[in-house]
Amino acid sequence: MPYTDLDWKAINTIRVLAVDATSAANSGHPGAPMGLAPAAHVVFQKFMTFNPKNPKFLNRDRFVLSNGHGCMLHYALLHLYGYDLSIDDLKHFRQVGSKTPGHPEAHDTPGIEVTTGPLGQGVSNAVGIAIAQAQAGATFNKPGFDLLNSHTYVFVGDGCLQEGVASEAASLAGHLQLGNLIVIYDDNHITIDGDTNVSFTEDVLARFEAYGWHTQWVKDGNEGLDDLEKAIEVAKSVKNKPSIIKLTTIIGYGSLQQGTHGVHGSPLKPDDAKQVKERFGFDPSKFFDVSPEVYGLYKETADRGAAAEAEWNALFEKYKGSFATEASEILRRYEKRLPEGWQNNLPVYSSTDGAVASRKLSETVLAKVINTLPELLGGSADLTGSNLTIWKGAVDFQPPDSKIGDYTGRYIRYGVREHGMGAIMNGISAYGLHIPYAGTFLNFVSYAAGAVRLSALSQHQVIWVATHDSIGLGEDGPTHQPIETVAHLRAIPNLQLWRPADGNECSAAYYVALTSHHTPSVLCLSRQNLPQLENSTIEHAMKGGYVVHEDSEAAVTIVSTGSEVGICVDAIKTLAAEGIKARVASLPCWEVFDSQSQDYKLSVLPDGVPILSVEVYSTLGWEKYSHEQFGLNRFGASGPYKDIYKKFEFTPEGIAKRAKATIDFWKDVKPIRSPLKRAFTQLI
Amino acid sequence: MPYTDLDWKAINTIRVLAVDATSAANSGHPGAPMGLAPAAHVVFQKFMTFNPKNPKFLNRDRFVLSNGHGCMLHYALLHLYGYDLSIDDLKHFRQVGSKTPGHPEAHDTPGIEVTTGPLGQGVSNAVGIAIAQAQAGATFNKPGFDLLNSHTYVFVGDGCLQEGVASEAASLAGHLQLGNLIVIYDDNHITIDGDTNVSFTEDVLARFEAYGWHTQWVKDGNEGLDDLEKAIEVAKSVKNKPSIIKLTTIIGYGSLQQGTHGVHGSPLKPDDAKQVKERFGFDPSKFFDVSPEVYGLYKETADRGAAAEAEWNALFEKYKGSFATEASEILRRYEKRLPEGWQNNLPVYSSTDGAVASRKLSETVLAKVINTLPELLGGSADLTGSNLTIWKGAVDFQPPDSKIGDYTGRYIRYGVREHGMGAIMNGISAYGLHIPYAGTFLNFVSYAAGAVRLSALSQHQVIWVATHDSIGLGEDGPTHQPIETVAHLRAIPNLQLWRPADGNECSAAYYVALTSHHTPSVLCLSRQNLPQLENSTIEHAMKGGYVVHEDSEAAVTIVSTGSEVGICVDAIKTLAAEGIKARVASLPCWEVFDSQSQDYKLSVLPDGVPILSVEVYSTLGWEKYSHEQFGLNRFGASGPYKDIYKKFEFTPEGIAKRAKATIDFWKDVKPIRSPLKRAFTQLI
Repeated sequence: MPYTDLDWKAINTIRVLAVDATSAANSGHPGAPMGLAPAAHVVFQKFMTFNPKNPKFLNRDRFVLSNGHGCMLHYALLHLYGYDLSIDDLKHFRQVGSKTPGHPEAHDTPGIEVTTGPLGQGVSNAVGIAIAQAQAGATFNKPGFDLLNSHTYVFVGDGCLQEGVASEAASLAGHLQLGNLIVIYDDNHITIDGDTNVSFTEDVLARFEAYGWHTQWVKDGNEGLDDLEKAIEVAKSVKNKPSIIKLTTIIGYGSLQQGTHGVHGSPLKPDDAKQVKERFGFDPSKFFDVSPEVYGLYKETADRGAAAEAEWNALFEKYKGSFATEASEILRRYEKRLPEGWQNNLPVYSSTDGAVASRKLSETVLAKVINTLPELLGGSADLTGSNLTIWKGAVDFQPPDSKIGDYTGRYIRYGVREHGMGAIMNGISAYGLHIPYAGTFLNFVSYAAGAVRLSALSQHQVIWVATHDSIGLGEDGPTHQPIETVAHLRAIPNLQLWRPADGNECSAAYYVALTSHHTPSVLCLSRQNLPQLENSTIEHAMKGGYVVHEDSEAAVTIVSTGSEVGICVDAIKTLAAEGIKARVASLPCWEVFDSQSQDYKLSVLPDGVPILSVEVYSTLGWEKYSHEQFGLNRFGASGPYKDIYKKFEFTPEGIAKRAKATIDFWKDVKPIRSPLKRAFTQLI
Repeated sequence: MPYTDLDWKAINTIRVLAVDATSAANSGHPGAPMGLAPAAHVVFQKFMTFNPKNPKFLNRDRFVLSNGHGCMLHYALLHLYGYDLSIDDLKHFRQVGSKTPGHPEAHDTPGIEVTTGPLGQGVSNAVGIAIAQAQAGATFNKPGFDLLNSHTYVFVGDGCLQEGVASEAASLAGHLQLGNLIVIYDDNHITIDGDTNVSFTEDVLARFEAYGWHTQWVKDGNEGLDDLEKAIEVAKSVKNKPSIIKLTTIIGYGSLQQGTHGVHGSPLKPDDAKQVKERFGFDPSKFFDVSPEVYGLYKETADRGAAAEAEWNALFEKYKGSFATEASEILRRYEKRLPEGWQNNLPVYSSTDGAVASRKLSETVLAKVINTLPELLGGSADLTGSNLTIWKGAVDFQPPDSKIGDYTGRYIRYGVREHGMGAIMNGISAYGLHIPYAGTFLNFVSYAAGAVRLSALSQHQVIWVATHDSIGLGEDGPTHQPIETVAHLRAIPNLQLWRPADGNECSAAYYVALTSHHTPSVLCLSRQNLPQLENSTIEHAMKGGYVVHEDSEAAVTIVSTGSEVGICVDAIKTLAAEGIKARVASLPCWEVFDSQSQDYKLSVLPDGVPILSVEVYSTLGWEKYSHEQFGLNRFGASGPYKDIYKKFEFTPEGIAKRAKATIDFWKDVKPIRSPLKRAFTQLI
């Protein structure tokens, strides 16, 4: 159907709403919404299947605005299509408590698939959504039942394409031949520093071609609705390549400052806003004004979307009849219910079992649960043999014609692309049918910091299998030995950092990570062998902290994590030889421990005797649980790990020496209060 | 000159040394050294100018082994050429205290230019070295005096090229037309997960062509010494493009496992090591065996390098005669001496001066010192107008034919490439004549975490101008508001994180950052205006912490940083109205404060009364300086900043309330000791 004046009215309504909202907020980015309104109209009106009354309809097409600063574009669309986003919400753009924050947040606003704004993340998330879709489709579609066949549409700006995270994800997307991914690149030649020719003169389409993408260029993104429509049709017809369409647009189209960075990140001046409205046939004295015809036009599409969902539901009912097991699996995974009794597969250890590296313990957990939990979609950033993230019989997630796997595969070879991997995992989680996990060295989780904080903010269940977790990795040396990493991750709200000390703690870490559906987890795992502790049980460790060794006559409590807990237990003997009694507590996960009752926590870290923490990282933050801290506030060293532990005195003797210093130093203070007791509670 | 048997003997000596060293360490990566030994021989013998007796010769060609895990290649070369690296050092490969750690560290080993191993960093550092060289050359070379004209040669593997940081740097290098950069890509088809076809099937050369690089492919990297030599000659002749030469090699050449990932990351089996030696004509019963002819061959080259330096020194003497000012500038900068009295330009404020955003204060500092300190090489990741990192009259560092700057320019448009920017700054610092600084939002320093920790480990003087430093940025919302970032950076050893509260503190931050030649700094700067504090002076703030408001009858000390210090000062009045007296301390830089005498520190945070910390970040770590902590252990909110501060109670009233709770909670504890008093000192 040809585009009509009403189509243009709708497009211009989006533009004017973006002008009004940024003016009302006196803050925000009108340029991208004004430039991209035509493209958004084409994508939403002609291609996307979605139901505003059920934003979580499983087989919906996904839309990702990777240039999230242009979010008024998306908010306007969501409002006009009848999502639960009122005109008042638009009026409260960028205000405290609104559903329209300055950058789109997936958990706050219906219809937002992933949190964007930090550049490069959205398009990388979209690669994850596309992977998840391809994997789910290959797994559940059956002859006559093309059940899961959605596309992911992405808008991306110059900024996103300069970011390394997007390069990583795009290279992998090309390798994986993700034909369900269509990216529209807003080629507007403007970034904050001005013309892109100051820093970004590469040939973007040639780069994507080199990655294995299908590329097109639509030269008139301002008026050429038909051209873009045709290009998207071509893109959809290419089944074995992701597509990128370079769409040349004028940023801030309609503004007196169009085509300049003046319209990028600040509201239009009142005069300019007025002329924009006049130019597009709007009454300049009205604000947030939407004509009924525009609502009507978009309602038709929304209704078609609702009908499409109804049709899909009918198909799903038929599918249920023919493929009952698969149908109930889809529902179970969609509702984030784990299969009953799955946790009985978790390995249980006794203290007489041998010492095992916790990366190896992690491998055992995965081997035990992987078949029971088909939602697990694993992988590694090219460290499979070191992270031990794969299992016997695993099939690679690979394009079928690669002959080294297929799309039902549940193991992703991410390549050496940690940041891309993190962002892709967020996208996999956002699709809704998988729990992604992936491995790298703990130190290189830092490469992915941008994605990790968004996992936490967006409440994605994503699991990092972070092996080689300390100086205990030995010879690779300081470049690979985390010091600050754990403090960094512990400081991220809504992130569970686990550092299990033995087999039961490792099982507990997986149990909590797998049942925490709105929280990412990082499991810090050792390269070196760790003994099984005496009082360690899955139930104890699930609390995030517990007593490993109790002694009612203790003069000191030693609290520790991971590979150092066993050494602390040995230190008890060293101290006992000098007539000093000590308790030892293990605190594998602060975030989980913090959520226990104060009574329980005080039973682990009680009043009365001083507490010494022991961990081979920066001591930063340990004061929260201890009076004195033994750690490593410097970079590590290259050598066999036992030599390094000795050099830095993380030995029974080194710990005992500091425990004695702690006892001595606190002998005159009365009362000795547990650091858990605080003057006031923190805001949440 | 044609290659002789002796050349091959030298090449095979490198291979065998790598086999012996990894075997002795029972750890390490023999594959890359064995595969790349021919290429290394060609580069070092035929192209590089260097003097092993003076590894810091200014106009040396630089060599960067980006695939740092192959460091035995470089260690072997350094030893054979006569750098201060003995055969014993090779025997102690990967041992505690050796000069041959598991990955090359610039500050430990003579001849290592930059610390590599974390993938993608080295090649990105090399872009920085090339930028610094081009800038210094354009600045100091004169007709007849081609004084600074070195090249940078890089070896890079598949892993490095998968990393986003390398993509960012490579795109910028192409834009900047860095003809002095020659990258040799070890196309060996192997990464840890096996064949690169599992994840890395892009057309690498096509990608680099898209970036604007000159590309070549040498198909036989194992035997084709002449082909590689010719390719490098061509690369050197291309003056306006960086070059990449794809060199197809067999990893672990000579091993029974050659061409497989079995030879990537573990020593060869004894039998295999034996047959390698036999194959290459070595006595398998000997270890670390180097023939005198090989030493002789390399000594010739080393002697040529020493002669080249002597010749350069003579040229420099002549240059001194003609260009005395420039010559003394080169020496001054090479020796890291700042011009006398430069610090007199630092702006000084009095408490009656108006409130100013600290990002603006930073702009003023830069404007005042930029002409006095020509070693400053600035830039921003596409946020110039927000970071305020540019100055009036600044010239962009751009390729001359761009017409928008030239190579004498001192302002780099990094594009939206934070991680690349961080790694490039490390390279600029490594070249030795510049102090790089660059801007982004504090939250996005996290994108560069991989490079930031290497700044600290490698002791690079790099300055991050990190604006929009908290929820105070307002409307952009939680995606842009740092919470965990400061804890992360504070936990990195040898990194100075500053959060100035006013103008004098900002000047102090720059003073210390500019005079700390072996330490990176991150300056956290506000978007919102901050009042000038009463007791703030540059001298006080230079100590990292000082008393802003003293009161000998105080019942509580409030310690804070940056934008919250002024609010704490206001809280004093709120408390005074209730008859409560309080002290306020400002702690703009923990790392610097920690280095003061215990007496001084105790004068700021004394015994006797409880201490409350106030900062709008994660409280993690503040227990080190305070008994109670008021912070933000959750994500922020989108809205005008004053509304957000109010929502989270960072107001005089909110602070006063918590100060009272603190006083009350600690009233029964005797003695109240400063948290600065500890049972034992940390290892350094």
